[in-house]
Amino acid sequence: MSDDALTPAAGGGLLHRRALLHRGLVLATALPAAASADEIRPEWMKTPGRPFTIYGQPSKHEQQVIRRISGNRMLPGNGVAMTPLEDLEGFITPSGLHFERHHNGVPEIDPARHGLLIHGKVKQPMQWSVDRLLRYPMASRLVFIECGGNSNAGWHPEPIQRGPGSFHGLISCSEWTGVPLSLLLDEAGADAGASWAIAEGADAFAMNVSVPLAKLRDDAIVALFQNGERLRPENGYPLRLVLPGWEGVLNVKWLRRLHLTSEPVMARNETAKYTELQADGRARQFSFVMEVKSLITSPSHGQRLKERGFHEIRGYAWSGRGKVRRVEVSADGGRSWAEAALQEPVLAKCMTRFRAAWRWDGSPAVLKSRAIDATGAVQPERAALVAQRGLNGYFHYNGIVAWAVDDEGAVTHVYA
Amino acid sequence: MSDDALTPAAGGGLLHRRALLHRGLVLATALPAAASADEIRPEWMKTPGRPFTIYGQPSKHEQQVIRRISGNRMLPGNGVAMTPLEDLEGFITPSGLHFERHHNGVPEIDPARHGLLIHGKVKQPMQWSVDRLLRYPMASRLVFIECGGNSNAGWHPEPIQRGPGSFHGLISCSEWTGVPLSLLLDEAGADAGASWAIAEGADAFAMNVSVPLAKLRDDAIVALFQNGERLRPENGYPLRLVLPGWEGVLNVKWLRRLHLTSEPVMARNETAKYTELQADGRARQFSFVMEVKSLITSPSHGQRLKERGFHEIRGYAWSGRGKVRRVEVSADGGRSWAEAALQEPVLAKCMTRFRAAWRWDGSPAVLKSRAIDATGAVQPERAALVAQRGLNGYFHYNGIVAWAVDDEGAVTHVYA
Repeated sequence: MSDDALTPAAGGGLLHRRALLHRGLVLATALPAAASADEIRPEWMKTPGRPFTIYGQPSKHEQQVIRRISGNRMLPGNGVAMTPLEDLEGFITPSGLHFERHHNGVPEIDPARHGLLIHGKVKQPMQWSVDRLLRYPMASRLVFIECGGNSNAGWHPEPIQRGPGSFHGLISCSEWTGVPLSLLLDEAGADAGASWAIAEGADAFAMNVSVPLAKLRDDAIVALFQNGERLRPENGYPLRLVLPGWEGVLNVKWLRRLHLTSEPVMARNETAKYTELQADGRARQFSFVMEVKSLITSPSHGQRLKERGFHEIRGYAWSGRGKVRRVEVSADGGRSWAEAALQEPVLAKCMTRFRAAWRWDGSPAVLKSRAIDATGAVQPERAALVAQRGLNGYFHYNGIVAWAVDDEGAVTHVYA
Repeated sequence: MSDDALTPAAGGGLLHRRALLHRGLVLATALPAAASADEIRPEWMKTPGRPFTIYGQPSKHEQQVIRRISGNRMLPGNGVAMTPLEDLEGFITPSGLHFERHHNGVPEIDPARHGLLIHGKVKQPMQWSVDRLLRYPMASRLVFIECGGNSNAGWHPEPIQRGPGSFHGLISCSEWTGVPLSLLLDEAGADAGASWAIAEGADAFAMNVSVPLAKLRDDAIVALFQNGERLRPENGYPLRLVLPGWEGVLNVKWLRRLHLTSEPVMARNETAKYTELQADGRARQFSFVMEVKSLITSPSHGQRLKERGFHEIRGYAWSGRGKVRRVEVSADGGRSWAEAALQEPVLAKCMTRFRAAWRWDGSPAVLKSRAIDATGAVQPERAALVAQRGLNGYFHYNGIVAWAVDDEGAVTHVYA
């Protein structure tokens, strides 16, 4: 390794991406040459282990890695369960930890009695059983789904003290596989006047939203599989509408019908909810695409750096408009920035893991990340977002997140 | 769609990849214009659904999708549990269904008392706790792991009648994230004379194997995460050696030490086992790389085509030498071949999903797939494999698999 690998890449101890662990950054423990630690066998090497299982579960030592439920006491099936982002690595979200957002609980659907109906402004109303859909040509998409309300605590005037998962955990990323919706629309034959579809789920809320027909023809799928296996009940079993890059509420779970129309239905979840009140009192509606965003998951609120020296800054970046082009990190509150490494493969409308090398010298630091997407859009500082949209937006918060590290290594959420 | 989209791409009803479902291939059910099916709400829309859960599980309607255990009655922890490949779609294997191969069961390891030791021909023996490893720079690899003994029923003189998972299910594909081993080797400082490492697991078998040091420096990682979350116990919790593209037994689970040497250890699992007896009575040893291979998962043994008309041929292809370059399918037993579509992203040493359009006319057919990898290696016909290696190989079977469809749509395994 050349000497300049330890040259700072930016202020506050950010190192070049090639920086490794040499010269004072070693984290291993050296053993005396004669050490016989290898000879000491723990008790689990002395007795046979447990037998095979038909379906595996996490280790009992990982039982704290769970979704955080934030429900409505009066309506137990209305609320959210958030992905513990700070406990994860890589970009796939295990299906058991995929976030949940329900309006009236998770229906228990018999797949033999469920199907999809396409009707309204069509040449011929058509319906498909789940078994029929399984025979269609399939496609897979590795994409995130993010709730439009994710990170909305960011609009609060004071920085709410919560970790990444409890604050920003209404996003998850899966491999979704199913039938391209364009095939099914072709069979039903949309009328010339059809420009919207009202998608409805088979839950007790009969969740419905309006989706432009152009998006359904573009890259939408009727998903049957998630991360290799059939959908989980809380993610729409047996059928979910997946609209890559578009806000979560439009990715209708337990999909039962698409009603083609010439106008949106103006459902509760596209008028009273999932719209964004602006500073001038008017509201943005149909802001479908999830904008460019990133988040440092380590170090992050609630963690504590136990030692000075090398730490890897890790996080997620994503954009509903395409690929993440670049992520920059700062350790001095945004005065200087260094480019983070992006883990390949970098995929469109998919979470991307970024990593950067940082040497903490024990003094206070403010860590930030900002993502730039393929369209050139740059994740905004919170102040710029607030200046543009006021404090009543509620949805589509994508401001830069800042974590302050104090001189004892404690990490808290700050506006900086 | 142009007319030639339905021109055959090869014999037996294989269609061009653009072939859709028009003109007699429609699988939907048309509804009378006045149908009011949309008004009939199933009972699960009439009562609130179940509340949120901290860790999700598959639908109770999917309880038949499980690993198939094939154990040793005398040694319950010795055997395999196979991935039900025919029930999956996409390329990720859900961690709960990742195959298992154990020699003495799954140890219950306390991560606070586990770590990695690198010793032997090193400048300084070093050890790392799990917590220390979590601080290192990480890397993710989307790769398959395949047992060297996968598909070995293919050596049987008669075609064994089993479905894809029960026959070929000792392969799974995950996103593995952990510490590049090259970083840890740099810290311990390998001696000039070190060319092998003996990797040992912390199970009651003390599973050990020899791995060339060059592979460990190349793309090996000490994995801590699988599909986003910490490893599952049966896949090595808390540490697994992942060697992309190399046979499963070398991807040592519950990794506890790497002993650097100048020669392989000649352990049981690289001499008596995981070697391949040739026709001339000599054995191949240290055949590390898993060769190019593919498998049609649908239609496949045990399935039954209920109707003539459109069916999608689906399967997996992979190679331990790099990316899959091309997959070809045949519906006439190999007399003619058509190119299948490969689902993006196509990644090196990773499973790749292929799909092809097929119209079954109701007459007998023999379906085959063959993969070609980035090195130009072509998956061999079984007869060629047997001519080259005899029938006693046991390991590294990668012959083309043939499924016969009879005139009633029943699918069986054949040598053809």
